[in-house]
Amino acid sequence: MPERVRDISEFDLIDRLRDALPAAARADARIAEGIGDDAAVWRPDIGEAILITTDSLIDTIHFRTDWTTWDDLGWKSLAVNISDIAAMGGQPGLATVSLVLTGDELVADLEELYRGMGRIAQRERVVVAGGDIVRAPRDFGIHVTVLGESRRGRYLTRSGAQPGDVICVTGTLGAAAAGLALLQLESDDPRRTATTAPLLVAAHTRPEPRVRAGRHALEHHASAAMDLSDGLFGDLPKILTASGVDATIDLAQLPVAASVRALFPDRWLDFATRGGEDYELLLTVPPDRIDGLTQALSDFESTLTVIGQIDDVSASPRLHARTLDGRLEPVRRGAFDHFRNDPS
Amino acid sequence: MPERVRDISEFDLIDRLRDALPAAARADARIAEGIGDDAAVWRPDIGEAILITTDSLIDTIHFRTDWTTWDDLGWKSLAVNISDIAAMGGQPGLATVSLVLTGDELVADLEELYRGMGRIAQRERVVVAGGDIVRAPRDFGIHVTVLGESRRGRYLTRSGAQPGDVICVTGTLGAAAAGLALLQLESDDPRRTATTAPLLVAAHTRPEPRVRAGRHALEHHASAAMDLSDGLFGDLPKILTASGVDATIDLAQLPVAASVRALFPDRWLDFATRGGEDYELLLTVPPDRIDGLTQALSDFESTLTVIGQIDDVSASPRLHARTLDGRLEPVRRGAFDHFRNDPS
Repeated sequence: MPERVRDISEFDLIDRLRDALPAAARADARIAEGIGDDAAVWRPDIGEAILITTDSLIDTIHFRTDWTTWDDLGWKSLAVNISDIAAMGGQPGLATVSLVLTGDELVADLEELYRGMGRIAQRERVVVAGGDIVRAPRDFGIHVTVLGESRRGRYLTRSGAQPGDVICVTGTLGAAAAGLALLQLESDDPRRTATTAPLLVAAHTRPEPRVRAGRHALEHHASAAMDLSDGLFGDLPKILTASGVDATIDLAQLPVAASVRALFPDRWLDFATRGGEDYELLLTVPPDRIDGLTQALSDFESTLTVIGQIDDVSASPRLHARTLDGRLEPVRRGAFDHFRNDPS
Repeated sequence: MPERVRDISEFDLIDRLRDALPAAARADARIAEGIGDDAAVWRPDIGEAILITTDSLIDTIHFRTDWTTWDDLGWKSLAVNISDIAAMGGQPGLATVSLVLTGDELVADLEELYRGMGRIAQRERVVVAGGDIVRAPRDFGIHVTVLGESRRGRYLTRSGAQPGDVICVTGTLGAAAAGLALLQLESDDPRRTATTAPLLVAAHTRPEPRVRAGRHALEHHASAAMDLSDGLFGDLPKILTASGVDATIDLAQLPVAASVRALFPDRWLDFATRGGEDYELLLTVPPDRIDGLTQALSDFESTLTVIGQIDDVSASPRLHARTLDGRLEPVRRGAFDHFRNDPS
């Protein structure tokens, strides 16, 4: 019989999960107290501000265990939080993880979850410093909080965009949405076996937080930054609102992988503008800084693409897009609303 | 029709909840960025260590909305986290709150929840700096993370207890368990209308974190500390294990309210030793420090009761109790296990 959470004690479960982490990602590796005291203790560098972010993943809402491996789920649950720290140009340092368990979960699956968390924690030098394990009647969930620190007292926000700044994104857009769409296709759909399919699915199941790019964006004086979790047309308006500016996006400039265009010729533009979970950085950068930043990112094979510009404030709507055939059209805010099916 | 979460946009909900907080507890009151950026920002005092704790409350497991008001639930969800910071002698500073909502919740109830959180946040000078709102198919839950800071670089842990130290607790034991028992009684049970019943129920629904007591315990050189969430016999062994010591508890010395003894003559000792959620502090203190600490606590009408002593390590079991009739008996570890009904 496979061992389930309800078959072992909570103390044993905590031990097993800690053992699934690489030594470098365990609390006792680098901080004073970890799993086992009332609170974890973290000593950031003297004088740095603390950045705090929290993201929750709920079974059937944010993931499906038949679509993702447990290892990837662990990776993603930490990655999406690290991405928020990256978006502020910060250095992630410590994570707490609360598992909400029904008791039915296989212990081996949760160990795999922690191995996936441990992999990205080790790479990004994050310590998993405990948390909480609680029972729930029905919904399995993972709640992660990540603390980071500012760099020499500085960090990026959403509120610094200035008219004349260029708008740019790291990497490509729409790959995660294309990956999700692939997972949702009928099992006999030939696109599921396309050679490029695994890469797109991985973009959805195993996102890459852009910590280094965020650091360089800060160093090269980006004026505003955020990570793309709700899609370009859902997230860019948040920068515009916070900064009190308008913007125009040139859809012809959007970096979209050839595989996304090829597999979804009718949907790629929708994926790139309204698909969520790319976890690329959306940056606004003074024009005289863009070359330096582009060069810095290219040094570690990361791309930066200019996709538009920040405008003076006019009337609502604040966001315009130049369409593929050259027309300038207003964009309706397209954020994903977690409780309604229509964009709000 | 009462307004439910699914009737309004997520943005509106966030605004409504922020508005339910008192100004002093809102992110923009004291920190650089709050609800609305990728991460919240917190600037602890220069050189202090950061204390991090997280606790989750799940509907029907940790609370029942027919037994608690939403205001009390908000209070408690923050209080139990603040209590963990108090147990380290720290100063709580910032909270993030993740709500897991089915969409059925009444907006007014959630506003009430935030008002309750705001009340204790304001009193304890904690800022509620955002978090996450996510949807779940079925289980409503509240996930709170609280950050605190050490005091002049120092904090209390579970691992410093020394043989010869006295063991003491703040306040009284068993009141929260008695309150829960009252809520579980048949509605026509006369004890439910006892004049002392509301106070006991409040001990369960609206616990008081002992932040000031924790600060004084640190200043008066307590050797170990934790907060009592799983009952004396569940929690004290954690100090013993962490410190590598044994202990003897004198049951005749346990501070148990007269109302608890009167209403539950057969159960009060069980409530005091194995009942959870008192959120009093359990401290070990060098004998020459106990008078000073007792005096310090009495200055703000908080009591401290010596209930036993730390012994040299012998064999397992590590914890002994002197019973009410004077016999010395080993104590089986009685921690509440969240997934099994028998103590582990």
